[in-house]
Amino acid sequence: MPAPRIAIVGCGAIGLYYGGRLAHGGNEVHFLLRSDFEHVRAHGIRAKSIHGGFSVSPVNAHDSGSSIGACDYILVALKAIANPALPALLAPLLKEDTLVVTLQNGLGNEEFLAEHLGPEHVAGGLCFVCINRTAPGVVDHSASGLISMGEFGRPAGSRLRALEAMMRDSGIECRTTNDLASERWRKLVWNIPFNGLSIAAGGIDVRAILAEAGMEALVRALMAEVIAGAAAVGHCLPESLIEQQVEVTRPMRAYKPSSLIDYLAGKPVEVEAIWGEPVRRATAAGANLPRLEMLYQLLRSLTTRP
Amino acid sequence: MPAPRIAIVGCGAIGLYYGGRLAHGGNEVHFLLRSDFEHVRAHGIRAKSIHGGFSVSPVNAHDSGSSIGACDYILVALKAIANPALPALLAPLLKEDTLVVTLQNGLGNEEFLAEHLGPEHVAGGLCFVCINRTAPGVVDHSASGLISMGEFGRPAGSRLRALEAMMRDSGIECRTTNDLASERWRKLVWNIPFNGLSIAAGGIDVRAILAEAGMEALVRALMAEVIAGAAAVGHCLPESLIEQQVEVTRPMRAYKPSSLIDYLAGKPVEVEAIWGEPVRRATAAGANLPRLEMLYQLLRSLTTRP
Repeated sequence: MPAPRIAIVGCGAIGLYYGGRLAHGGNEVHFLLRSDFEHVRAHGIRAKSIHGGFSVSPVNAHDSGSSIGACDYILVALKAIANPALPALLAPLLKEDTLVVTLQNGLGNEEFLAEHLGPEHVAGGLCFVCINRTAPGVVDHSASGLISMGEFGRPAGSRLRALEAMMRDSGIECRTTNDLASERWRKLVWNIPFNGLSIAAGGIDVRAILAEAGMEALVRALMAEVIAGAAAVGHCLPESLIEQQVEVTRPMRAYKPSSLIDYLAGKPVEVEAIWGEPVRRATAAGANLPRLEMLYQLLRSLTTRP
Repeated sequence: MPAPRIAIVGCGAIGLYYGGRLAHGGNEVHFLLRSDFEHVRAHGIRAKSIHGGFSVSPVNAHDSGSSIGACDYILVALKAIANPALPALLAPLLKEDTLVVTLQNGLGNEEFLAEHLGPEHVAGGLCFVCINRTAPGVVDHSASGLISMGEFGRPAGSRLRALEAMMRDSGIECRTTNDLASERWRKLVWNIPFNGLSIAAGGIDVRAILAEAGMEALVRALMAEVIAGAAAVGHCLPESLIEQQVEVTRPMRAYKPSSLIDYLAGKPVEVEAIWGEPVRRATAAGANLPRLEMLYQLLRSLTTRP
């Protein structure tokens, strides 16, 4: 049996880090790049990491899917903003049993892929991790690292468990879940307040957010609303998550959430995936989420103006 | 009986406009200026106004209170931010029966003056008006104009009614109220959402705020919270105020609220008077104001960072 072929689509912080770990672990990993193609082909990938830095060179760098060909696994690490381009990007990489694992943030990504590729191809992963891409091919992994993966609308199967084993063997903290949808909401408990307030409060990092009591209270109130929203659509998350997520954030110090980095760089922010879709789903199910709706409105306004 | 002497303390948009109207109407008005003193002394006051433009030259321009001396009326039009300096500024202007009318925004200004001058000297006025200061001594009055005045903790008395008459004779739309505290909350129904969102949504004018349905819904939700907050502290404002205040705003077109102008100019914003004090008073009385509290937190954060 030939070794599994893995494609990484999207080589920002998440794609470089997890793809780099898998390649460093001896797996056959192909990176589909765009702007950083020449640089990564020439210089490979370098990672600073709290779990020990590593570098990969040469890497299998590609600027088109057709030069990669069919893969067993595709990890999607593009911003959700780029989804309309995704079906065409993925087409040359697909075979009958390819598993596409979207590592994107927010809600709606599995549904989008299922619609275009068929649900049997679709899985998702939540990256509970602090990683920033600091230069082309270079990442800085500063906290956490767990990736939690599940299949779309069904329990984790053998393909996903095999990927989990490869990840673990490559030094990635990894688990599978039979309830991917709940796990997505669990991640939103952090992303919604911290990514959102980092922008809405004027471009501040997580340390600055937690430095002020009123702001920390707002973080907690937003987390409670996300938990209430999750409950409205059938996902029961414990209230204790609030305290735990605040405490896990303190050691991150001056970490800038990815949405803030995009915003400050003038790049599109995943407003609909992270804030819009959760608001729509939860309010349609009867939840009352005044702060979350307000944050969504402000972020829409802040990110759609010139 | 000598003509009443009126002092205008603070010569931004509000002070120049109302003081200018009173002077233009033939009253003895003295302007206490700081940065614009030389300019206004040399060039007077010019106003563009939907009620007909006017100019006043020469004006009684002063750079210290002692050159003005005791007055019958003092209109305070400084930002609330400057309150700590106010007692010393007012001291040379006071006599036994001086009425000090604060035209400042937000809550807490009458209380501050009462504490320092004695409550019998204190009245307040709410300016329901769109005025921008476009240059030293120059204002642009673009909508509305009503000033609603009341005395602090008591019905309007003869001194205030005499001022009302002078204002009317000078072409100022004016009324007195026996419930100044309710009137302050009524003004907040507009100031809290529009001044606040114009900053928090990224520096946008009232037309841009109302251009988006989700943003208009947020304006209305904030207005409902202000009305609920007012009710909690004993002031009954009608729900119909929401519709009326939104409709009165549409013709203002690209008007920038004064707080936004201050913010964009890097000047201090009256965050505590307009948002902080209403939040504190209403929540202490048991009101639940999630959006208003969140707006206050965001504005604090946006205005206290370099």
